[in-house]
Amino acid sequence: MTGHPPGAVALIDAQAIAHNLRRLRRVLRPAGTRRAPRIWAVAKADAYGHGLEHALAGLADADGLGVLTLDDALRCRRLGWKRPILAMGADFTLADLRDPALYPLHVVIDRPEQLAGLAGLPPPRMPHVWLRHCGALNHAGLQAGEYRAAFRSLHAELEAGRLAGLGHLQHYAGAEDPEQLPRERRAFHELISGMPGPLCTENSAAVLSDPASACLTDWVRCGIALYGISPLRGLTGRALGLRPAMALQAPLYATQAVRAGQGVGYHGGFRAERDMRIGLVRCGYADGYPRTVQGPCQAGVQGRMAAIVGRVSMDTLAVDLSAHPDAGPGDAVTLWGPGGPEVESVAGWAGTISAHLCVGLTARVPRILRPEAQEPSRPVAGATRKKARVASK
Amino acid sequence: MTGHPPGAVALIDAQAIAHNLRRLRRVLRPAGTRRAPRIWAVAKADAYGHGLEHALAGLADADGLGVLTLDDALRCRRLGWKRPILAMGADFTLADLRDPALYPLHVVIDRPEQLAGLAGLPPPRMPHVWLRHCGALNHAGLQAGEYRAAFRSLHAELEAGRLAGLGHLQHYAGAEDPEQLPRERRAFHELISGMPGPLCTENSAAVLSDPASACLTDWVRCGIALYGISPLRGLTGRALGLRPAMALQAPLYATQAVRAGQGVGYHGGFRAERDMRIGLVRCGYADGYPRTVQGPCQAGVQGRMAAIVGRVSMDTLAVDLSAHPDAGPGDAVTLWGPGGPEVESVAGWAGTISAHLCVGLTARVPRILRPEAQEPSRPVAGATRKKARVASK
Repeated sequence: MTGHPPGAVALIDAQAIAHNLRRLRRVLRPAGTRRAPRIWAVAKADAYGHGLEHALAGLADADGLGVLTLDDALRCRRLGWKRPILAMGADFTLADLRDPALYPLHVVIDRPEQLAGLAGLPPPRMPHVWLRHCGALNHAGLQAGEYRAAFRSLHAELEAGRLAGLGHLQHYAGAEDPEQLPRERRAFHELISGMPGPLCTENSAAVLSDPASACLTDWVRCGIALYGISPLRGLTGRALGLRPAMALQAPLYATQAVRAGQGVGYHGGFRAERDMRIGLVRCGYADGYPRTVQGPCQAGVQGRMAAIVGRVSMDTLAVDLSAHPDAGPGDAVTLWGPGGPEVESVAGWAGTISAHLCVGLTARVPRILRPEAQEPSRPVAGATRKKARVASK
Repeated sequence: MTGHPPGAVALIDAQAIAHNLRRLRRVLRPAGTRRAPRIWAVAKADAYGHGLEHALAGLADADGLGVLTLDDALRCRRLGWKRPILAMGADFTLADLRDPALYPLHVVIDRPEQLAGLAGLPPPRMPHVWLRHCGALNHAGLQAGEYRAAFRSLHAELEAGRLAGLGHLQHYAGAEDPEQLPRERRAFHELISGMPGPLCTENSAAVLSDPASACLTDWVRCGIALYGISPLRGLTGRALGLRPAMALQAPLYATQAVRAGQGVGYHGGFRAERDMRIGLVRCGYADGYPRTVQGPCQAGVQGRMAAIVGRVSMDTLAVDLSAHPDAGPGDAVTLWGPGGPEVESVAGWAGTISAHLCVGLTARVPRILRPEAQEPSRPVAGATRKKARVASK
């Protein structure tokens, strides 16, 4: 109820998302080539936790949006999205597909039962259909025999003018593994050999690790890279020319003098080796900051790193302010993203992946669109002293 | 868009919460005693992820509600809560405290700066004030000297009729540790020796592990136990006479035949040793199911356990249905709670605590109040075959 937000906020940089989309386009269209695949901008899970409406502000140039369900697709339409939408995990009936608001609509067929939902749709409400093979992932997806049968049946529908299109789609189980990716690609190409239709197989990891192969397909599906996060192990988004689109910030709400020998946090996980000044940050695992971080973890305070000390609790985490004598209540602390550690680092401390952190932010963390005029997203500088307050709503 | 909800839902059992409250009351009032402490029902973080409005349906007999901020307190008032509210981590100004809707209001003072916000409130809008010592936790909280000075100043206000009450509050750093708890208690009692006023120090772990000491205080603060979850390591809520208040369920949306030698899930984390039938469940880490589970993990299908196979992905996890030949699309899978594994087990697989899982459910998981008429919450039975479909909204 004071000037700064009472808790954690995720600041979303739509310009960074637009930058990342341009970056992927350049990767997919090397100088001198005439043709490049179109890009499905994957916006599942509320745009990987960034907030669909904010992500759309950066995705105006995408060729289509990839979502999970038809409800998600309708939400995109309500937000004004006019181009194609790919529903990647939709349950649907014939009645659902009759809603004209959904079109232009692409749907993925990953189980034989879904075919019944497609028969008898009158033009012009015809979806573009993508068959998905189960592949090495073995989540939803047609087995080889089911795939061939579905293709025969749907190809007849296509020829009769009752489908807008029919393509081939695959999710790789190990796209970031340079040995497994070609094997998975080859197996899928063998399956679809002789079946005409566009190809949609490559994701962020495949596009960035093997763009030459990705360029030979018709549509790519990019999610995590659009948000500035590396899909490849051991590399950050920045190293791949991407800009992080999210900064998780929370206010420092109190400071505490801790004497040598005293503990900080639940279960005495940290014991001070010297007298120190700590800052209490209004962010905890109830916001989605992972309680499971281990080892030396950091957050950004006044543009420099400060160590996180003690166990992360439900609503609070503590940082060592010994080297930040000017920091005090109201200062913004950056838990990840520009002004703090890379999200890839925090994911490493928590033993998980960056996407898990971004989509794991809870309902109480407002996603706020960062104003365009603001300074460009940069990594934490060495020793600047500028006060960075938490952005107001 | 079919009959069952498209994704994960958390079914909330308000009767279980009411049962747990009664259980804590019995623990706090052994036969023959005349006086028992009052109970703050802690409902921070949207009632530990259960949904405040659903939790309130089970908390009608609590003496007061414990929340974090004044905004949370106002939300409780809008939901019809008339008894006292304890704001445990509130930033406030004098203007904030003038809102009559907040009262009867208790506020925690954990930093000297907050005292300024209390001077000059005209009756009858007088909060009850609790001083909080930093203790061994060393998060927010007054140091000993600050505590004594604040007590002197506020005691004068109390005597002059300008406060509704003045008490002593502490959060233990190791309430579940039978050696540390008495030390922390003793240190606080030494600090407040000679200072009159009610005492509020005991939480779920302290109440359940040492009820005799808890009975000597005036108010206890119970959170996790109210939701049926054990605050003590190595014990489940059920072992403590509590009933779990949340069941996380999600629909099985497809099945897949996997041949011996094939992998399931990203990064080939699982490889089938024999031909098997798996079920794909519409729940993943974007719902808040932890991607970090390790070892043999399970979920409840048709009242019996099924192994989770392969890495949990954003929107899907897979279960082994080899021993569930009748299970198919539309069946409910229980990820934790009645009908599935205890939430304490899932927390163990994920290397965290149950509270982390419950508060970590994301916005896309609807919290649905379980109808009263339903069967009582029970652990998974041996080999019942009853079909348990996901409850409709």
